[in-house]
Amino acid sequence: MKTAVMGFGTVGSGVAEILLKNSRSVADRAGEPVELKYILDVRDFPASPFSSLLTKDFSVIEQDPEISVVCETIGGVGVAYDFTVRLLKAGKSVVTSNKELVATKGPELMALAVENKVSYRYEASVGGGIPIIRSLYDSLAGNEITSVRGILNGTTNYILTKMINDGLSFETALSQAQKLGYAERDPSADVGGADACRKISILSSIAFGKYVDPASVNTVGITDITLDDVRECEARGAVIKLLGSARLTEDGRLAVRVAPAVVDENDPLGNVEGVYNAITVTGNALGDVMFYGQGAGKLPTASAVVADIIECVKKTKNEKLRLWSTGDADFVLPYLSQTARLLLRFEANGDFQNLIEGYAEEGSVIVKNGVVSFVTVEKTFGDHAAEIKRLSSFGKLISRIDYEAK
Amino acid sequence: MKTAVMGFGTVGSGVAEILLKNSRSVADRAGEPVELKYILDVRDFPASPFSSLLTKDFSVIEQDPEISVVCETIGGVGVAYDFTVRLLKAGKSVVTSNKELVATKGPELMALAVENKVSYRYEASVGGGIPIIRSLYDSLAGNEITSVRGILNGTTNYILTKMINDGLSFETALSQAQKLGYAERDPSADVGGADACRKISILSSIAFGKYVDPASVNTVGITDITLDDVRECEARGAVIKLLGSARLTEDGRLAVRVAPAVVDENDPLGNVEGVYNAITVTGNALGDVMFYGQGAGKLPTASAVVADIIECVKKTKNEKLRLWSTGDADFVLPYLSQTARLLLRFEANGDFQNLIEGYAEEGSVIVKNGVVSFVTVEKTFGDHAAEIKRLSSFGKLISRIDYEAK
Repeated sequence: MKTAVMGFGTVGSGVAEILLKNSRSVADRAGEPVELKYILDVRDFPASPFSSLLTKDFSVIEQDPEISVVCETIGGVGVAYDFTVRLLKAGKSVVTSNKELVATKGPELMALAVENKVSYRYEASVGGGIPIIRSLYDSLAGNEITSVRGILNGTTNYILTKMINDGLSFETALSQAQKLGYAERDPSADVGGADACRKISILSSIAFGKYVDPASVNTVGITDITLDDVRECEARGAVIKLLGSARLTEDGRLAVRVAPAVVDENDPLGNVEGVYNAITVTGNALGDVMFYGQGAGKLPTASAVVADIIECVKKTKNEKLRLWSTGDADFVLPYLSQTARLLLRFEANGDFQNLIEGYAEEGSVIVKNGVVSFVTVEKTFGDHAAEIKRLSSFGKLISRIDYEAK
Repeated sequence: MKTAVMGFGTVGSGVAEILLKNSRSVADRAGEPVELKYILDVRDFPASPFSSLLTKDFSVIEQDPEISVVCETIGGVGVAYDFTVRLLKAGKSVVTSNKELVATKGPELMALAVENKVSYRYEASVGGGIPIIRSLYDSLAGNEITSVRGILNGTTNYILTKMINDGLSFETALSQAQKLGYAERDPSADVGGADACRKISILSSIAFGKYVDPASVNTVGITDITLDDVRECEARGAVIKLLGSARLTEDGRLAVRVAPAVVDENDPLGNVEGVYNAITVTGNALGDVMFYGQGAGKLPTASAVVADIIECVKKTKNEKLRLWSTGDADFVLPYLSQTARLLLRFEANGDFQNLIEGYAEEGSVIVKNGVVSFVTVEKTFGDHAAEIKRLSSFGKLISRIDYEAK
């Protein structure tokens, strides 16, 4: 079988490297050798050991009948989208690490793949080398899944870990992450939560069988998290993590969001540090299963792309199962109707009793230097907004974070 | 598609329950409805909602052309083996939770399945609902796997957790586990390590592609672990876990064993408590990935059986890949040639310097009430045996445990 890589960046070059280095085990697993025939990139790489495979002409790949599977590691929804559409129409399977494309155009591309009797696979789009997507599709198939929840972005988890363990400010931790290559020069998609949003959108579309548009997922990043928040959580035996979560409600709708959340230090997710990712899946038969590993990085992500290439070679029947149904606009519960507890901190205007009356959970109030902090009872985000507005006459809100600890 | 369950015990009845309760999602995933047609058991279950499906006659299942997949949840290597052979020869796929049968007869049964163009699947044989087997076969296929290591037995992990957290003796913790149904009346296969041995044998056969006979895996259980051992580890910031481990050595051989081992409290495996299982896989591209969840229990295990039924319905090409090659008798490194560090405790006969001279790692010696404990330098188990024999004139060995902490 012959394949091509489009986009010779971090992941694309990792795919080339693995296909070379692990060629024997790849052939064993696929049942036949997998040969890399082309690498598409607009740039030149004269010093690369793969330079002889480089081409700038997409149509060479599109028109080569020997190529049956193509790896799209370009990223974004521009040419990556155009090329993917053309390849699927040309009867070639496409595997990708491009979470933005999968999250925004997934239903269309999967339908196109089915129509053309090929595959569109995207294990590498979530969790790097962690086999979460295949597991949701295949291994956990005996379950009705009720919840998917996880630390989906390594950059923000690295920053939060540095704030928690070393007392660094957000800005210092971010610049350290950039120096180490864990954050990009423009870190907004990571720290603003868009990356985690795309990933929880993909995971929940699979777990619940209906397309969850990232635009419908309320997303809060970590840019407003301060060291005071971190210390407040520490005093409560808890830590702040950026969580993507999707939970089936009793009336069959989906409560899905991305937000910083307070979790117990002893929660399996509370122990996940640095650039690691972890995803907890709850099934009605299974209980909880957690997947943990490096959520990004050249070779881990590339190894997931290669596993998808192998899967395309061993193509299964019933590929149509991988469709995400669309059209149920009511499936995602609006953010203001989703419920949560919050950890709130106020500067009190005087008597703090007014702030907590009927709103704070018993035993959760800490008063220190005129600052009142407490965990609220569970309410919808709509009700929380009204409460917080009402309380503005009794104190100034300093911070609010979703509270998911005990 | 129609299926049958053989053995209406814990797992078998869980399979029946899930096929009924989750029938819609099972049909969605399989691409067609999956109907349970027979349950084979020698016992009567007049009060069961499934009583109308019960039969005592195996040949009814064997000869029914409507049955294409059969679940073997009988256990053991007696009738379970005979029935599996007959079903595979009759052209029916078999899925199983029977780790003893897979570990001891796997190569033969897989070859028979290939010969008859059907499947023999066993996701439920290791880790209950944790999708470790499928992941090793498919999702991590882009990697050369270098190590598999984990807590594979929930009963012993429950007992060790109770010893560590609550200071219970081994005997008290075991009897508590029996009361809660976490340990069987005859707990020897669990506490003696045979169960973990079968599981690491299955996992390493998959990960390294060559059959690892459980008889070739040196196995030590937890029956000799005392509260003194637990406290000794606590003083060193570590905990004792029963680990099954398989590691590829530099000369391409496999160091595989089951033994209690000292691991850091902060090691991801050190945090796994109670009946939970966790398995760490290291690949040359991937780094470490960890899988965590309930390793046993009716519904988690049954959900893995159901996932395998679904997989049989969606049968892939290249089923022959699932063979384990046999015949490389040198693949498993003999126990005495495997290397490790040990945590040793001696009652010293006088000057303890003789005990540690050239054998203890620097900074690892603790002397208390005439007892000397230390971590050895890394040696083969053969050399350790010689050292320990030599040291018998200087002190009495109280305990030795594999040491895998920092």
